[in-house]
Amino acid sequence: MELKENERIDDLQCNGLKIIQNEKEFCFGIDAVLLSDFAKKTKKNARVVDLCTGTGIIAILLSAKSQAKYITGVEIQEHIAEMAKRSISMNLLDEKINIINEDLMNLKNIITSGTIDTVTVNPPYKPKNSGVINEKDTKTIARHEISCTLEDIVKESARLLNTGGNLCMVHKVERMADIFVLFRKYKLEPKRMRLVYSKVGDPATLMLIEGVKGGKPFLKMESPIYVYEEKQEYTKQIKEIYGIE
Amino acid sequence: MELKENERIDDLQCNGLKIIQNEKEFCFGIDAVLLSDFAKKTKKNARVVDLCTGTGIIAILLSAKSQAKYITGVEIQEHIAEMAKRSISMNLLDEKINIINEDLMNLKNIITSGTIDTVTVNPPYKPKNSGVINEKDTKTIARHEISCTLEDIVKESARLLNTGGNLCMVHKVERMADIFVLFRKYKLEPKRMRLVYSKVGDPATLMLIEGVKGGKPFLKMESPIYVYEEKQEYTKQIKEIYGIE
Repeated sequence: MELKENERIDDLQCNGLKIIQNEKEFCFGIDAVLLSDFAKKTKKNARVVDLCTGTGIIAILLSAKSQAKYITGVEIQEHIAEMAKRSISMNLLDEKINIINEDLMNLKNIITSGTIDTVTVNPPYKPKNSGVINEKDTKTIARHEISCTLEDIVKESARLLNTGGNLCMVHKVERMADIFVLFRKYKLEPKRMRLVYSKVGDPATLMLIEGVKGGKPFLKMESPIYVYEEKQEYTKQIKEIYGIE
Repeated sequence: MELKENERIDDLQCNGLKIIQNEKEFCFGIDAVLLSDFAKKTKKNARVVDLCTGTGIIAILLSAKSQAKYITGVEIQEHIAEMAKRSISMNLLDEKINIINEDLMNLKNIITSGTIDTVTVNPPYKPKNSGVINEKDTKTIARHEISCTLEDIVKESARLLNTGGNLCMVHKVERMADIFVLFRKYKLEPKRMRLVYSKVGDPATLMLIEGVKGGKPFLKMESPIYVYEEKQEYTKQIKEIYGIE
């Protein structure tokens, strides 16, 4: 396995899976790991699409954690998509996971409407005009709504999903109102949520939310996730999700 | 102090305040106490309106916990409003708290638009058509959206509030999507939330939410409230809010 400059291979602590990351450009965070845990109860033989797939982390983890049959990762940045493809091959997952290097706004001619059971997405968190310096920078594209907005993502997810299919998203808590309004607008009823707190007593930072296409209104708020114990050590919850120990 | 049938006086553990309740018809719950705690940081000399005031519990607690100057409680049921008035008088709070026996849909001629700093509400939780047996029953009116819907409440709150004024509401978590969509519709931006879990590991039951009229989007999710310890004893958090010990 040949690596490019600044790349490294990390062990995912899950069925021997590994991933290629670029230390300078782009590494996955705890949000991706938490989302794959939150989204793992797909239906049997589900067709899954992971939007904004980046390194492919969510697609790779779901291949082991869920009962999905096919997973398609969509990534707009060519060199990131290429890195994700190498991770898929390294894990011998080419028959299960397919990486598409495409703008998610252009999926209409590639994936038929209403054919997907689960969409996952760890989208850019920040609104377009919030402190962007370089719109071509890899990290900036991954973190700011430059190539797609939250509405683009929710709208395309709703198009992809069949009735009863679900969208699982991780996002910043501060955007919660935007998320609820957009989920409702595109008929993805919020059915399940889980909040992530850095530690006991702190405000929540991240939210995990599941919207069901055509679902009836009734939200379940699952027990919170705490990331750290007092001394910056991971909690038991997080160690279990990461597969540590 | 003369009590009617089935009425009793309870000590509120707060500045010697007391309240009259009717054991058969209507007693306040922990939700009202949590809301008065959540809403207590009013601005100095604030004008407050408490919709669906019931026994007047929130108005009475806020008179002690907040810096509000005037508090108006609005209650549609005549005999409940009358009981609340007696509680106000018993606490010598007639100059600070005023109870109006009126449908909140008819407040336009009583309270001028844009004159209120804080609205609080512990509304009926259940949608109109969810298992209602007797639409005239006191408890049913308090618990189901019979005399007013969630939208009526949010709309009237937005009318009452001045720009920068806030609506503080307690509601069931399951209605969260409805609440976000309605707050946005009436320009009450969700700015602060807190979730209430019965105990560690359980799903959340109640949500406390603050919307600010004309506020900029950015939600803060405060640390969660847990009601019970393992053995059904109140947590330290709850004892502090209740003023026990």
